Amino acid sequence: MKCIIAAEPIDYDGSQIGSLWAYTRFGAREDNIICFRGACSIPLKHMIDLEDKIHNERIESPDMLHFIAEHFDVPSLKIAYYRQRLLACIAEEALKDAGFIVSRSGDDLFYNGGKLSISIASTSAVSCKIHFGINVECEEYMSLGKMGLKDAGGLMRQIGERYALEIEDIEKDMRKSRPLEVYGL
Amino acid sequence: MKCIIAAEPIDYDGSQIGSLWAYTRFGAREDNIICFRGACSIPLKHMIDLEDKIHNERIESPDMLHFIAEHFDVPSLKIAYYRQRLLACIAEEALKDAGFIVSRSGDDLFYNGGKLSISIASTSAVSCKIHFGINVECEEYMSLGKMGLKDAGGLMRQIGERYALEIEDIEKDMRKSRPLEVYGL
Amino acid sequence: MKCIIAAEPIDYDGSQIGSLWAYTRFGAREDNIICFRGACSIPLKHMIDLEDKIHNERIESPDMLHFIAEHFDVPSLKIAYYRQRLLACIAEEALKDAGFIVSRSGDDLFYNGGKLSISIASTSAVSCKIHFGINVECEEYMSLGKMGLKDAGGLMRQIGERYALEIEDIEKDMRKSRPLEVYGL
Amino acid sequence: MKCIIAAEPIDYDGSQIGSLWAYTRFGAREDNIICFRGACSIPLKHMIDLEDKIHNERIESPDMLHFIAEHFDVPSLKIAYYRQRLLACIAEEALKDAGFIVSRSGDDLFYNGGKLSISIASTSAVSCKIHFGINVECEEYMSLGKMGLKDAGGLMRQIGERYALEIEDIEKDMRKSRPLEVYGL
Amino acid sequence: MKCIIAAEPIDYDGSQIGSLWAYTRFGAREDNIICFRGACSIPLKHMIDLEDKIHNERIESPDMLHFIAEHFDVPSLKIAYYRQRLLACIAEEALKDAGFIVSRSGDDLFYNGGKLSISIASTSAVSCKIHFGINVECEEYMSLGKMGLKDAGGLMRQIGERYALEIEDIEKDMRKSRPLEVYGL
Amino acid sequence: MKCIIAAEPIDYDGSQIGSLWAYTRFGAREDNIICFRGACSIPLKHMIDLEDKIHNERIESPDMLHFIAEHFDVPSLKIAYYRQRLLACIAEEALKDAGFIVSRSGDDLFYNGGKLSISIASTSAVSCKIHFGINVECEEYMSLGKMGLKDAGGLMRQIGERYALEIEDIEKDMRKSRPLEVYGL
Repeated sequence: MKCIIAAEPIDYDGSQIGSLWAYTRFGAREDNIICFRGACSIPLKHMIDLEDKIHNERIESPDMLHFIAEHFDVPSLKIAYYRQRLLACIAEEALKDAGFIVSRSGDDLFYNGGKLSISIASTSAVSCKIHFGINVECEEYMSLGKMGLKDAGGLMRQIGERYALEIEDIEKDMRKSRPLEVYGL
Repeated sequence: MKCIIAAEPIDYDGSQIGSLWAYTRFGAREDNIICFRGACSIPLKHMIDLEDKIHNERIESPDMLHFIAEHFDVPSLKIAYYRQRLLACIAEEALKDAGFIVSRSGDDLFYNGGKLSISIASTSAVSCKIHFGINVECEEYMSLGKMGLKDAGGLMRQIGERYALEIEDIEKDMRKSRPLEVYGL
Repeated sequence: MKCIIAAEPIDYDGSQIGSLWAYTRFGAREDNIICFRGACSIPLKHMIDLEDKIHNERIESPDMLHFIAEHFDVPSLKIAYYRQRLLACIAEEALKDAGFIVSRSGDDLFYNGGKLSISIASTSAVSCKIHFGINVECEEYMSLGKMGLKDAGGLMRQIGERYALEIEDIEKDMRKSRPLEVYGL
Repeated sequence: MKCIIAAEPIDYDGSQIGSLWAYTRFGAREDNIICFRGACSIPLKHMIDLEDKIHNERIESPDMLHFIAEHFDVPSLKIAYYRQRLLACIAEEALKDAGFIVSRSGDDLFYNGGKLSISIASTSAVSCKIHFGINVECEEYMSLGKMGLKDAGGLMRQIGERYALEIEDIEKDMRKSRPLEVYGL
Repeated sequence: MKCIIAAEPIDYDGSQIGSLWAYTRFGAREDNIICFRGACSIPLKHMIDLEDKIHNERIESPDMLHFIAEHFDVPSLKIAYYRQRLLACIAEEALKDAGFIVSRSGDDLFYNGGKLSISIASTSAVSCKIHFGINVECEEYMSLGKMGLKDAGGLMRQIGERYALEIEDIEKDMRKSRPLEVYGL
Repeated sequence: MKCIIAAEPIDYDGSQIGSLWAYTRFGAREDNIICFRGACSIPLKHMIDLEDKIHNERIESPDMLHFIAEHFDVPSLKIAYYRQRLLACIAEEALKDAGFIVSRSGDDLFYNGGKLSISIASTSAVSCKIHFGINVECEEYMSLGKMGLKDAGGLMRQIGERYALEIEDIEKDMRKSRPLEVYGL
C-alpha cells in the first residue's frame, strides 16, 4: 500500500474515481492512496452516488483535500465501503490529534454541526476505489479554514500515511490468526 | 444486524469466539453483535492470535465489557479485520462522546498511554467473528474505572448499537452506488 | 429482502434489468423483488441473452406479469442463475396452488406444451438481477388467459412474496449450520 | 456434474455429509450427486443443523432414498443452500410427474400435511454438500410407502439425474449471458 | 474445458478478447481455448494493457498463432493472470518438445534474446480471458519462421490441447485434496 | 511475497503444510515461500492427498529440497492449484537453466522417465499452501544426485526467488489492465 502526495494541485472532477487513474497519472503499480489538493466540481455523468444524481445535486468546492484510494486485491463493493468508513475514522482521528474534535456519521465528518467532507466508494471488475474530500475553503459548508486549522498540507499527509499504515497493519494481523472453531464442538 | 445486550454477566473464556455461539446461546438467526459484561480469562487452546500463544501470554481481567460480532455474509479473514478496526473506531467515538479522548493504534485503544482494550478477529468456513473487550477494572492495564467513567453499561449499549447501525448504513450505501468506469475510457 | 408490488402498470422494455432500477424507481435500499404488470417489448440493445440477440429474436407480449429481483449481497453470475431457477420453481408452485399443473424446463414454464414464461439473469459489478415474465395475454404462446386463471394480480403477489420469504428463510438456515468435516478424518 | 446410483444399499449415519466421501467411496473426481437407499440414523456428533443438536432431535428412519450432492466449484454456505432448495424443488417435480402432488416449505416436502423428507446443507473449506432424504418407510412421518408410490428406485434415479442436468443447464446459461448495465446510464 | 482449432484463418484485432466472443463465433457453451492463425493489429480502443495504450504502442504482426482462453468459473483478474502464466509455460514446454529452448520472463517468451510472443489477460463481470500470440512471421521481433520451426499448425494444436488438459487436471486434483489444518494445533 | 532460505536443514513430516507454520517458525508476516533441505517422511495423518492416503502410499526420501508457499490473499483451493502448477513450471525452468531438460506432467517433474518430485496443495479458511519437493538423493526415484546436479543449494535459491518474483510480477500486471468489454457490444 503506497501513499503518494501529489506535488501539484489537481482539481477533482469525478474522473479520478475511475479505475486505474493512479496508474495512468502516477504509474502506481501497487494498491495506493493518492493525496492532493484542489477544487472540486463533479458533473452528473461522473456521479457514482445515484442519490446525488437523482436529486441533481451540485457537488462543488473551491478548495479541498482529496484522497483517492485504490485496491485491486478484492474488487468488491462491500469491502470498498468498509475501507471508506475506516478512512473517515482515520481523518477524524488525525483532526483530533490536530486539536479539532469532529463527529462522524457514516462517511461524513461534521464540526459544530457543519458538514466538512464528502465521500463515495465503488468498484469496477478490476479495482475498488474511494474518494474522500475535506473542505479547505467553502462558503456553504464547514471547512478547515472556518475551523482555523492552518496546516492543511500536514493534515493531508497525516491522513494518507495513516491509511496506508492501517491497511498494512491489517494485512499483518491476518497473517497470525488461526481459523475459528465452532462453539461447543 | 441485531444488537443483543445480555441480561446477565457472562465470563469470557475464548469459547465464545467460536462460530454459532450467538445462535446456541441466544438463538440469533441474523448477523449480530452480542454485548455483555464479565471477567476475561483465555486458556491457550482458545487463543486465535498465535502471537499470544507463542509468547504464552496471559490474557486476563476481572471485569470487562465484551463485544462479540458475528457475520455470515462473507466468511473472509480480510473483511473480519476491517470490521474489527471499525468496531475499535466506534468504541473510540463512543468514549469521546462520553468525554474521554482515547487514542487508537490498530485494534487497541489507549488512555494516557495505558492499554484499555483487547481484540481479535478471525473466520471459519461459515462465519467471521470479532471479540473486542474493554477493561472495566484491571490492575495491570488501563480501565474505565481508572479513567473515572461511571456508566459502563451505557457505554456498552452505545458501542453495540452504533456498530449495528453502522453495518446497516453500509449495506444501504452499497445499494445506491453505480459501478466504476475506467479512467480515460 | 423486500417485495414491492407496483401500484401502476409498467411496460417492460429491458431497461429495468439494469442494476439500480429499483432504487431509481422505488427508492429501494434493500435486496428486492419488484412485481408489476404490463406489456413486454425488448429491443436488441437491451438483450442479455446473446442467443436471442444472435437469432434476432423478437420478445414481445401485450400483457405480462413481471418480476425483477435484485441482490447486492454476492454479485455473481452463478448465484444469479440459481436464484432464477428457484424463482421459476416458486412460480410453478404458486400456479399449482392456484389449481394449474405446469411443468418446468430450466427457466421456462409450460402448460399443455405451450411456453408460458420468459426469463433471464445476469450480473454487473454491483448487483445481480433476474427478470421473470409470465404471459397474461399472448397470441403466439401460452398465457394465463388461455389457461383460464382469473386472478393474475393475486398470482403476482403470491410469487413475489414467496420469493422474498424463501430468500429470508435461506439466510436463516445459513445461520444455524456448522461447517463440514472431511469424511474419514 | 455426475449422477451416481449406488449399486447397493448404504445406511446413512451422517458421516457421508463429510467432504470427499464420494471420492473415497466411489472415486468421483467431478462434482456429483450420489443416490442410494438405506436406513437413516444420525448420531449427535454428525449433526450439522445445530437446532437439531440443541433439541437433541432423533433423526431416524428404517428406509429412505438418500441424495448426497457435492460441489467443489464454490465452497460457500450460501450457494449450498440455494442448491439444496433447488434439489427439494426437483424432488417435488419428480413426485408430481409420478402422480403425487406434494408441497414444499423451505427444504421440506409434505404430503397430506405429513413431513416426507429431511435435508441439510453446509460447506467445508474445499466443498459444499447437501443431504436430502425421502422416507420410503417410516412409522412416525409421511413416507412413499404410505403414499402408495411403488417405484422408489425409479424416483431416486429421476431426482438424481434431473439435478445433474439442471446444474449443467445452469452452467450453459451462464455462458451466453452478457453482464448488466446500470439503469439510466 | 474445450479446445477449438479454428478451421480458417482469423485476424486478431483485439475485439476477440471481449467476453463471449467464443460463444458468438463458435457457439461455445463451455470454458474454452480457441486456437487460430492470422495477422495481428490492435487499435488503441481495444487495448487492455494501459501501458501499451499510454505509450501508444503499435502491436502488429503479419502472421501469428493466437490463443484465446475464456473461463466463466471465477471471473477474477488474479486468476486470469495465473492462467496466463501457465499458458505461457505450456507454450514454452511445447516449443521445447519441438526442439526449441526458449526462455520465459513473466508472460513473454524469448528465443536468442528476441521477443517471440505477446499476451494480455483481464476480466469482465462474467468471464476472464487471455490472449496469447506467437509470431509466425515478423520482421521486427523473433518468429517461428526465423527459428526454423516448420509446423506452426502442429505447435498451435499442441499448446491448445495441453492447456485444456492442464485445466481439467487441476480440476481433478482439487477433488481429492482435504483442507489444511493449522500448524501446531 | 517473501522468499526465506532456511539457515538449517529441516525434515519434512507433513506438519509444515499446516497454515501458519511460516509464522510460527520464521515469524513471517507476509505471503511467503520457505525453502529448506532435509529428509521427507509423511505419516498418514498429515496426508492431504486422499489418493495417497487410500492407497496407503509411503512418501519418503532421505534428502530433498523443500518449498512451502503460503498465500493469505485468497484462501481458495483452485488458486492454490494454479500456483502449484506455476511453481512446478518454475522448477522446470530453473533446472533447464542449470542444464537439465526435465519434463512436467501436472505437478510432477520427470528426468529420463524417472519421477523427480512430489507436490500437494490445499487451503484452510485462512491461507492456501503448497508443498513442492525435489529429490536430492533417492534410491527408488530420480534425484538431483543421479542427474549429476551438484549445486542443490543454488537450485533451491533459484526456484524460491523466481517464484516470489513471479507472484510480484503478476500483482503488478493486475494493476495496469482494464476490464473487458463484451464482444460485439
